[in-house]
Amino acid sequence: MPEGKLKTTPRTKMVRNPARADYDRTAVNEIIDATPLCHVSYIIDGRPYVTPTLQWREGGMIYWHGSSASRFLRQIVGKDVCLAITHFDGFVLARSAFHHSINYRSVMLFGKATQIEDSKKNDLLQRFVENLIPGRWETLRPMNDQEAKATTVFSMPIDEGSAKVRSGPPVDDDADYSLPIWAGVLPVSQALHDPVPDPKNLKGLEVPAHIRDFRLG
Amino acid sequence: MPEGKLKTTPRTKMVRNPARADYDRTAVNEIIDATPLCHVSYIIDGRPYVTPTLQWREGGMIYWHGSSASRFLRQIVGKDVCLAITHFDGFVLARSAFHHSINYRSVMLFGKATQIEDSKKNDLLQRFVENLIPGRWETLRPMNDQEAKATTVFSMPIDEGSAKVRSGPPVDDDADYSLPIWAGVLPVSQALHDPVPDPKNLKGLEVPAHIRDFRLG
Repeated sequence: MPEGKLKTTPRTKMVRNPARADYDRTAVNEIIDATPLCHVSYIIDGRPYVTPTLQWREGGMIYWHGSSASRFLRQIVGKDVCLAITHFDGFVLARSAFHHSINYRSVMLFGKATQIEDSKKNDLLQRFVENLIPGRWETLRPMNDQEAKATTVFSMPIDEGSAKVRSGPPVDDDADYSLPIWAGVLPVSQALHDPVPDPKNLKGLEVPAHIRDFRLG
Repeated sequence: MPEGKLKTTPRTKMVRNPARADYDRTAVNEIIDATPLCHVSYIIDGRPYVTPTLQWREGGMIYWHGSSASRFLRQIVGKDVCLAITHFDGFVLARSAFHHSINYRSVMLFGKATQIEDSKKNDLLQRFVENLIPGRWETLRPMNDQEAKATTVFSMPIDEGSAKVRSGPPVDDDADYSLPIWAGVLPVSQALHDPVPDPKNLKGLEVPAHIRDFRLG
């Protein structure tokens, strides 16, 4: 299994390289946009932490948010963070244990976490909801000042990091292809299921179009 | 969305607490065992990093592995790491933006990464493959010394960390339940698809039972 696991095919350095290809940027954006889930790594008192949270992208910036009371968010203001977005796309079954692997798409981003000032927060949060569930924001009870205050938003430019992608069949040692061992891929993906209405919904409320039509990624 | 996102329901401290309930340990183990994917956070030159990799559990120990040549793995020997395992279970759609959230199960573990000595590595890697795809190991071309050498395995005791779980319908402000806004959950899960044979498989090889019967988690 070992080395196959995080094989870097390709490893895309975006590291302040003015010659970087638009292709790389597009590939990175697609990986980011395909899920809201990310893992943010940070340091408190010299020890590493990693916290799952939700992210969204606007152009060349990535945003994430959370409770203003969260220890995680209070600690990272202006600090170095590393943000990872990972899609697990399948098990890669080779003819030797060593060449077992997974198919995946992942992005790792580096930078400093900039806290968004209050005046810009409400618009950003609106765009976050619109990005997450298009069409939903306009159906909601409007956000109030207390809620905005209780929310912290961070941003980071997407300009230092790398993307790694592995896809396709296993890659085995030449000699092993003659062995009568079944090899291949067990694909995995995220699946969306039918909406489950809140039992406290008012009687007669139908599933709205923005929920019925929602698609992942 | 904000504070709901990482609401700690419940937050289970396992932190060297002799009075911890067996229930907590069972809940943590179930979250760990339900996916091989984890994110490991670590520090290099005072900056945080987070790398996705594969983990497996044996009793009260968690293991992960990788290429002996990997910068990530060479840097963490004996060092503090934080390991996160996260399941994204669905979008939680409330009547206000603020109470939007996701359903999820997550575990965060802390400890020092202990490198496994060579003499124990082969057995561990065998158990890893067996754990990942039960029944597969015995069908494979045996691992050789060079492959074992190229693989590094780490362990960490599962005794410091926390679990967070959010499930069920949204929790809205009392006054908002009277609004005619559809609320509920859009469940998400990992789905396994039909096996895709390697085009280089020998002619006539059928999908073996251990692949046909494979289930996630």
